Amino acid sequence: MRTFSLFFFLGLNALTHVYALWPQPKNLETGDIFIKLSPNFDIKFESDGIAEAPSDLIGAIGRTKQHLFEDRHRRLNEKRGECDLEVLQDATSISLLKLSVTKSSIEPIAVEAVKAISTRTEEYSLTLPADGSAATIVAESSLGLLRGLTTFEQLWYWLEEGQNGIVYSHQAPVVITNDKPSFPYRGLLLDTSRNFFPVKDILRTLDTMSMVKMTILHWHVVDSQSFPLEIPGYEEIAKKGAYSLEQRYTTDDVQHIVKYAAERGVDILMEIDTPGHTDSMSGAHPEHIACSKAQPWHDYAAQPPAGQLRISSQKTREWVADLFRNIAQTLPSTMFHTGGDEINMRCYLDDPQSREELAKEGFPVNDAGLNLALDQFTKVTHDALRQVKKTPVVWQEIALEHWLEHLGNDTIVTIWTNSDKAVHAINQGFRVVHAPSNYFYLDCGQGGWLGDWPNGNSWCDPFKTWQRALIFDPLEAIKPHQAHLVLGGQQMLWAEQTTPENMDPVIWPRAAASAEVFWSGALKGSDRTLLTALPRMHDLRFRMVQRGVKAITIQPYWCALHPGGCDA
Amino acid sequence: MRTFSLFFFLGLNALTHVYALWPQPKNLETGDIFIKLSPNFDIKFESDGIAEAPSDLIGAIGRTKQHLFEDRHRRLNEKRGECDLEVLQDATSISLLKLSVTKSSIEPIAVEAVKAISTRTEEYSLTLPADGSAATIVAESSLGLLRGLTTFEQLWYWLEEGQNGIVYSHQAPVVITNDKPSFPYRGLLLDTSRNFFPVKDILRTLDTMSMVKMTILHWHVVDSQSFPLEIPGYEEIAKKGAYSLEQRYTTDDVQHIVKYAAERGVDILMEIDTPGHTDSMSGAHPEHIACSKAQPWHDYAAQPPAGQLRISSQKTREWVADLFRNIAQTLPSTMFHTGGDEINMRCYLDDPQSREELAKEGFPVNDAGLNLALDQFTKVTHDALRQVKKTPVVWQEIALEHWLEHLGNDTIVTIWTNSDKAVHAINQGFRVVHAPSNYFYLDCGQGGWLGDWPNGNSWCDPFKTWQRALIFDPLEAIKPHQAHLVLGGQQMLWAEQTTPENMDPVIWPRAAASAEVFWSGALKGSDRTLLTALPRMHDLRFRMVQRGVKAITIQPYWCALHPGGCDA
Repeated sequence: MRTFSLFFFLGLNALTHVYALWPQPKNLETGDIFIKLSPNFDIKFESDGIAEAPSDLIGAIGRTKQHLFEDRHRRLNEKRGECDLEVLQDATSISLLKLSVTKSSIEPIAVEAVKAISTRTEEYSLTLPADGSAATIVAESSLGLLRGLTTFEQLWYWLEEGQNGIVYSHQAPVVITNDKPSFPYRGLLLDTSRNFFPVKDILRTLDTMSMVKMTILHWHVVDSQSFPLEIPGYEEIAKKGAYSLEQRYTTDDVQHIVKYAAERGVDILMEIDTPGHTDSMSGAHPEHIACSKAQPWHDYAAQPPAGQLRISSQKTREWVADLFRNIAQTLPSTMFHTGGDEINMRCYLDDPQSREELAKEGFPVNDAGLNLALDQFTKVTHDALRQVKKTPVVWQEIALEHWLEHLGNDTIVTIWTNSDKAVHAINQGFRVVHAPSNYFYLDCGQGGWLGDWPNGNSWCDPFKTWQRALIFDPLEAIKPHQAHLVLGGQQMLWAEQTTPENMDPVIWPRAAASAEVFWSGALKGSDRTLLTALPRMHDLRFRMVQRGVKAITIQPYWCALHPGGCDA
Repeated sequence: MRTFSLFFFLGLNALTHVYALWPQPKNLETGDIFIKLSPNFDIKFESDGIAEAPSDLIGAIGRTKQHLFEDRHRRLNEKRGECDLEVLQDATSISLLKLSVTKSSIEPIAVEAVKAISTRTEEYSLTLPADGSAATIVAESSLGLLRGLTTFEQLWYWLEEGQNGIVYSHQAPVVITNDKPSFPYRGLLLDTSRNFFPVKDILRTLDTMSMVKMTILHWHVVDSQSFPLEIPGYEEIAKKGAYSLEQRYTTDDVQHIVKYAAERGVDILMEIDTPGHTDSMSGAHPEHIACSKAQPWHDYAAQPPAGQLRISSQKTREWVADLFRNIAQTLPSTMFHTGGDEINMRCYLDDPQSREELAKEGFPVNDAGLNLALDQFTKVTHDALRQVKKTPVVWQEIALEHWLEHLGNDTIVTIWTNSDKAVHAINQGFRVVHAPSNYFYLDCGQGGWLGDWPNGNSWCDPFKTWQRALIFDPLEAIKPHQAHLVLGGQQMLWAEQTTPENMDPVIWPRAAASAEVFWSGALKGSDRTLLTALPRMHDLRFRMVQRGVKAITIQPYWCALHPGGCDA
């Protein structure tokens, strides 16, 4: 007969002492001394030879101070840290965090954040002494200081006492030496065409991305369903193609978003998906769109409504090239995404104008001829981007499926259908971004959205859990000498069934998983595991909620309070 | 060669003229005349021989007036109803809705709503004339009038014009004759133990349930993870078993919730799940709990932490019986749910005290003996409920798996594992509630929540779409003479991964699907289809959002504006 004496819940307390940093820093050492934040706590930038901090670094410092005193985030254990009150009576206080850079000059964060993707410096070192002397963050750049500030914010918890409560850390001294990302591209895709997201929802998302050190918002701003982007010189497209004038990003909105993002270390990679997914241009410019709203739509497009830019038309190519130039030159990023996914050949083959134009150019009127036309379309539109010093980024089909003779080797390829496609693009010498549906699609598994679909699930079932994203290995099957071609990766919010009402729960905390993979490196071969990530993920989620982000809970609250208690 | 002339998007406008009522009323006739709500519009209760309306009916009338003028819900077509402005210039105005009952007396809604489940009268008839004369709702009861008011609210749209805008219907005259539900039990289960939901979130959910004429909130208030319920005379259980004192429903909270619900036509069916799922009682009462927090938990329970009431202990049986009496007699419902799912036999067989007690009662120390003990436990606890005039409700295992000799035939059985189990309970003569995981579990398919579960999905994959719930047939495989044993059904929110942050998107609008199935009857054999339900579901979702409910969008906005445009 068994009895329970041996089975009682032992050992959980040992695990409650977690260091809840996300993403996990490299080279982290911590102690177990409690230290309080003085009510007079201040953060000062003092660096030899530099008269004053850039204004956006001053802004970042202000936000960190605000988070430190306003997060009111309590430790996740049975009494939510209440038992810490006693030891905190005698704890030392710290009143200063000093920031400095190792160079004799400093640029604004907003400048550093949008430099060419592989040239950014995010490295920082951080100390939090246990004796009350000043904490430090040292970096080469303002962007590195920002990353250090983000880490610093995650070291602190809160307890109620008196008017302002106690802000404290239980893990001093903390020493982080040369923490830096494994990959520079750590992104999130947001689709604002299937459903519209007001500016404030995008800004909140940027703040949350910054919290986990993400670097890229891949803004899939337009698609066949709507065109919510005002483009200088092409204002008529959004006027006719946005869901309404209110559901449109004006030039001022876009400028506000890219500035807000850059000050938080996030580069906006805007995408105008072409030549497919473009029916929303047909209201203002029917002359450029083939098979507009053709039925049955599934013969002509991956989604309703059908409609594609006429790649065989020289006029259309030049029009798109000019449109790209006009919008891209208003954006600080060095990259611009031109789309290129799911091009439907029948759309063109059933379009009399396209057939005529193909014949006129001397191309055969078939798939092969359309690939030649696409090569021209891509060359003309990409060259326009290069004229304004932008690197083109494309979906994988452009590199892998259409045999394009003139596709530049500078092109960056976003891999989306399946993770096993990355190596094919890399073998062609392209730089890649991992965005595979079998790991990173936030919309999968929550039901198909077509009308007559009783048992219907999504095409990319099952649901992708945060654990699924966290086990992704960016360098799997990639030869060491090609590793530099992997820029990083991103999770994706395709918004067929997402609006501001549910965007936070769909994105967070799941998207933080890839943020860690591409900062800290693959789980495999590291000293991190899913089980040690779990309490850190809980902590991150509860901190997000404190900041007004409606992040989903990943387990019953009981599990969050009892680390190890809900393992399989 | 094909061209598009034949394929252009024809015929969509014909479908935009939808009658967006949810659930679909029986015996509905509508016209296509536009009619405006007068700014002086009023709703009056005038019924022969009745001096005044019950105060909660007056409250319901007030809420309807508020919704009519504050919903600001625009029609779902390309211009969101803007084209209606012209015809509205000359439209007739209506200034009165008259309510009356066909009886010479009337009881409050809150009294009608909690009567024995099969004795409630929800039937109503409604007219909205096209000539500006008064609209009418006639019913036998205040509860019927409430259902009519809910329908009336859904007839109206809004357009901006002047200070208050125009509230109008485009479908007068409307005649609904003797609309009434096919089944009385139209429910939603909310689990407040895995994660806690503040009172305000429950109240908002009740309002939304009322909007779609739901009748039962199955409140799975406690479970092994936490015990957030203050029970008179047993206050110590929540003090030790709630996540915190703030995460607890006080007696006042409970009274507020049941009153608020009843006034909105919703009966609260409270569940204290026993004897399994009860470890949260062990803090205050370790003497009643076997295998508390035993490890490995999966040997002793379906979820961590393990812990079950000692069914072989006469003291425990009487303690639970008294606890049931104490809480049940404070509740207006005629039903009380005693749980009974997922009882783990090994928990008792490994518990020395349980083994001793079984032997003392002369029961064999094995599964068969435990079934005899469970029979006693169920008899004692159910009899206590009958003493306070409550009908016991149980999960299916109690009826189907344990061979309980004394289980009363008055017991109502909630079917949960699979829809094919209903017929087994019915064949034993029990009344059933359909709550099958293969149709109605709102939590399925969104990822497993155990710690070490990289590819893990939930046990009840795939995700259950609203369409899946809508094709459920309550009488499938049930013989006509047994149909009266089907009380209805409910969708379920098990809250392992749900908190107030994401409860609305998880529940709405999906849970409205079963609300329609059990009001309007099965889709199969009716003139409703998934495709005709789609625009009505869109309309309902957008109306919910207008009322502050964060309901998920079910398709891209483009599809909502182009009925028929996104069918598979």
